[in-house]
Amino acid sequence: MASPHRQAGRTACFAGQVPAASGVRGTWPGCHGGGCCGDQVVAASGAKRRGAGGRARPSAPQHPALAHGRHGVGRPGGVWRAFQRDPEFGPDGRGGDALPELLHGQPPVLPIQGSSAHRTSAHPQRLLYYQWARQERHLGHRPQFHPLKHGFDEWFGSPNCHFGPYDNKARPNIPVYRDQEMVGRFYEEFPINLKTGEANLTQIYLQEALEFIQRQQAAHRPFFLYWAVDATHAPVYASKPFLGTSQRGRYGDAIRELDDSVGRILRLLRDLSIAENTFVFFTSDNGAALISAPRQGGSNGPFLCGKQTTFEGGMREPAIAWWPGHIPAGQVSHQLGSIMDLFTTSLSLAGLEPPRDRAIDGLDLLPAMLQGRLTDRPIFYYRGNTLMAVTLGQYKAHFWTWTNSWEEFKQGIDFCPGQNVSGVTTHSQEEHTKLPLIFHLGRDPGERFPLSVASIEYLDALRRITPVVQQHQEALVPGQPQLNVCNRAVMNWAPPGCEKLGKCLTPPESVPEKCSWPH
Amino acid sequence: MASPHRQAGRTACFAGQVPAASGVRGTWPGCHGGGCCGDQVVAASGAKRRGAGGRARPSAPQHPALAHGRHGVGRPGGVWRAFQRDPEFGPDGRGGDALPELLHGQPPVLPIQGSSAHRTSAHPQRLLYYQWARQERHLGHRPQFHPLKHGFDEWFGSPNCHFGPYDNKARPNIPVYRDQEMVGRFYEEFPINLKTGEANLTQIYLQEALEFIQRQQAAHRPFFLYWAVDATHAPVYASKPFLGTSQRGRYGDAIRELDDSVGRILRLLRDLSIAENTFVFFTSDNGAALISAPRQGGSNGPFLCGKQTTFEGGMREPAIAWWPGHIPAGQVSHQLGSIMDLFTTSLSLAGLEPPRDRAIDGLDLLPAMLQGRLTDRPIFYYRGNTLMAVTLGQYKAHFWTWTNSWEEFKQGIDFCPGQNVSGVTTHSQEEHTKLPLIFHLGRDPGERFPLSVASIEYLDALRRITPVVQQHQEALVPGQPQLNVCNRAVMNWAPPGCEKLGKCLTPPESVPEKCSWPH
Repeated sequence: MASPHRQAGRTACFAGQVPAASGVRGTWPGCHGGGCCGDQVVAASGAKRRGAGGRARPSAPQHPALAHGRHGVGRPGGVWRAFQRDPEFGPDGRGGDALPELLHGQPPVLPIQGSSAHRTSAHPQRLLYYQWARQERHLGHRPQFHPLKHGFDEWFGSPNCHFGPYDNKARPNIPVYRDQEMVGRFYEEFPINLKTGEANLTQIYLQEALEFIQRQQAAHRPFFLYWAVDATHAPVYASKPFLGTSQRGRYGDAIRELDDSVGRILRLLRDLSIAENTFVFFTSDNGAALISAPRQGGSNGPFLCGKQTTFEGGMREPAIAWWPGHIPAGQVSHQLGSIMDLFTTSLSLAGLEPPRDRAIDGLDLLPAMLQGRLTDRPIFYYRGNTLMAVTLGQYKAHFWTWTNSWEEFKQGIDFCPGQNVSGVTTHSQEEHTKLPLIFHLGRDPGERFPLSVASIEYLDALRRITPVVQQHQEALVPGQPQLNVCNRAVMNWAPPGCEKLGKCLTPPESVPEKCSWPH
Repeated sequence: MASPHRQAGRTACFAGQVPAASGVRGTWPGCHGGGCCGDQVVAASGAKRRGAGGRARPSAPQHPALAHGRHGVGRPGGVWRAFQRDPEFGPDGRGGDALPELLHGQPPVLPIQGSSAHRTSAHPQRLLYYQWARQERHLGHRPQFHPLKHGFDEWFGSPNCHFGPYDNKARPNIPVYRDQEMVGRFYEEFPINLKTGEANLTQIYLQEALEFIQRQQAAHRPFFLYWAVDATHAPVYASKPFLGTSQRGRYGDAIRELDDSVGRILRLLRDLSIAENTFVFFTSDNGAALISAPRQGGSNGPFLCGKQTTFEGGMREPAIAWWPGHIPAGQVSHQLGSIMDLFTTSLSLAGLEPPRDRAIDGLDLLPAMLQGRLTDRPIFYYRGNTLMAVTLGQYKAHFWTWTNSWEEFKQGIDFCPGQNVSGVTTHSQEEHTKLPLIFHLGRDPGERFPLSVASIEYLDALRRITPVVQQHQEALVPGQPQLNVCNRAVMNWAPPGCEKLGKCLTPPESVPEKCSWPH
């Protein structure tokens, strides 16, 4: 969209988990037996194209990444996570302008679909990070972080994933909002049957998206839509027409419903004759959550480990771009991408320049998508403030290895079930900064065979990687850790609108405490 | 082909490894990072269809399976392998009529492509089994087992895979035949550069196939072609135009050449206007050889372990059927298939009934391919004479688990690199016949999460599986072990035609010895 619409556009966010914590929710299948894997093109009608090897940051700020197009670590306003060794307490963030705010002035015709949730704010990182499964970190209900205060015109969804049910005493059930106010809670007004796996939520989010698009089209308004569903996040659910219809269990049923829903959104765009004027992008925020497998999690196919790790199974995602008449159909791109790129790409579609007052890590993917031009760029993988690994070309160098702690592992929590690569899938944090473990991801997408440190190939790869990493690290300015505080009082006890529904709960006393973020 | 051509047809066999030992050569990629996985449809122009979940028997007689359509174990004339515990010496087989012989009388228009090699004989099992990498078992050069004596009209290829180079003293290089006589040897007249990976063999086999098809078409003759290439079997090779062109290393280069070659064969069929009269089937005899990974082997994607095991990584293959105008394009079938089915399917295409004087295990796949009709049938997985596992519907029950021996494993030979499923990827032969390990392959294609034996699902699955296995075992009649004899004298010392070339070598004294078959 080189010439963006100048008319004021609408932005909306429909999701069961908006805004979501990074790497935790809306898990796309990643790669499961019956789905698409690795560099496989996912079938889609019309023009389509896949940014192969798209990377997420499963334990790093994807959603801020999309909102700000920059690494959320080590930059002023960036997100720090404690990585179990930095107990510094500092929940205050100083973010820059967020994507929807930038777009609101110059709105493109840009729905973004995907199971990554996104709400924006001037300080989105803190917001996003505080709402992980451990609800006591959740700050998402606080008025200053509400999506409608940060560029979105409409919101339907929840500030958390659909964990629960809770008893509303030790912890409250997650609220579901329409715009400013809650309209109910999961497991109450929005039922989820954990036994059968039945929930109607994907259908509700779908209807919201379809109606939003129809309304904008009727008003001839450009729009930005962030559609983020969480059906594939444990507890996995599907609506009745889809339950039991796949050969992949409940997880497959949820995928089928997601697939059907995306198809219905695309069909509407065609029916409204705006398909050729609409850029659609589908991806995931992380690989399959193998800790939830096999009943509530997918498979990462050939890739090592899963969500919460910086191995390929946690980071490498399928991604599909769809823009009939602009992006040639059926192509596969080997451009290495990241969710941060959606920030820059979205601005580019709107004919806007990225802000110049800060470093922007996101790459404009349009040259890759429209002209097949490839940009050789590194992808950095963080856990907390630690640079775990980097990919450059076909080589991935691990400076640290770690799956999860022995303590967790002995309790049966396993990020790499059935996988065990000696010296790679370590349960302690192993440092390899001097001589990183290097894999050739082409020959060895599963990260099973580290190159010999004595080989010429290893030395050549290291020689290329070292200056790139140095340059990256020199450009970083330390920020404040924001993920090592817990406080039960910030849970969703009394969201706006609770009075009307008679659903306000009394929060406990506010006691912020240091706590560790194990991922 | 319900109404087969009645004119005498031609059959040919072009391969670098014809006939091949089962489970050892012509490895198709199985499932590698950039390829197709699991139930994924492989892109192919024109009508295509995939028998999802096609099964091979990596350590069992695939090639006899194709030639005879029956389990090669425990039937008179069947193949026995010692499974390290039956030292009985009995290399004599009594096979039934072979497929090409049956087809020769009633030839269909039936080229079969695939990296499985196939030569037929009245006693193919013995033949096929004696020519594994351990050449001392090789009997393939013996005149009575020559393809042209068993239904084929033409042969270009070798009786072994392209192991070597040998010094022609301790062991001879593998010969390459044209029809009755050898025309050279690998590493001599047919060079393979192990350092660069360059060899022109796929191009040679391709030219042979194209010319054969053209000749048959010019003479208006129906034909049966078995095109079996071995470029993806270690040592992996590609011709110069393909070397270095993939992002998957030499293995990917070989795959690209294979893919290109298949495309050229299909194009020729179209150019000759016989595509709608030609049934093409592409599959592999086993999963990726992970012992050769990552440089000389593929990846089995989400599946457990690789070739030489009865886990999904060793057994589950992609398969594509192509028959424009007959098989609807782009379909995926969930019919569980086996290479034995190609025997029965081929006869069906020729309008022939399978022989009635013996049990035939192969299923006619045409109803599944042409009408989408699914047949619920079990697949049995053997190692030697031991029933290791069975798949029925979505459930797979393992009666024995074993990867490879501790002895091999400690030497660095690993059939499951990077994978370790407790109690499943065992290095001793573990018996579970009373309470088999059962996996739901839909939810858990990677065989990582055995069902709890206390679950209702387990009991239900076991209740269905038990009578099916009993029925199968009751129908089996023990045969003679044929794979526990080694004899250096049966190597390719002096193949027919060696005199003309001056390439006859003197064989050592014939000393048949008992030896074990570890796979």
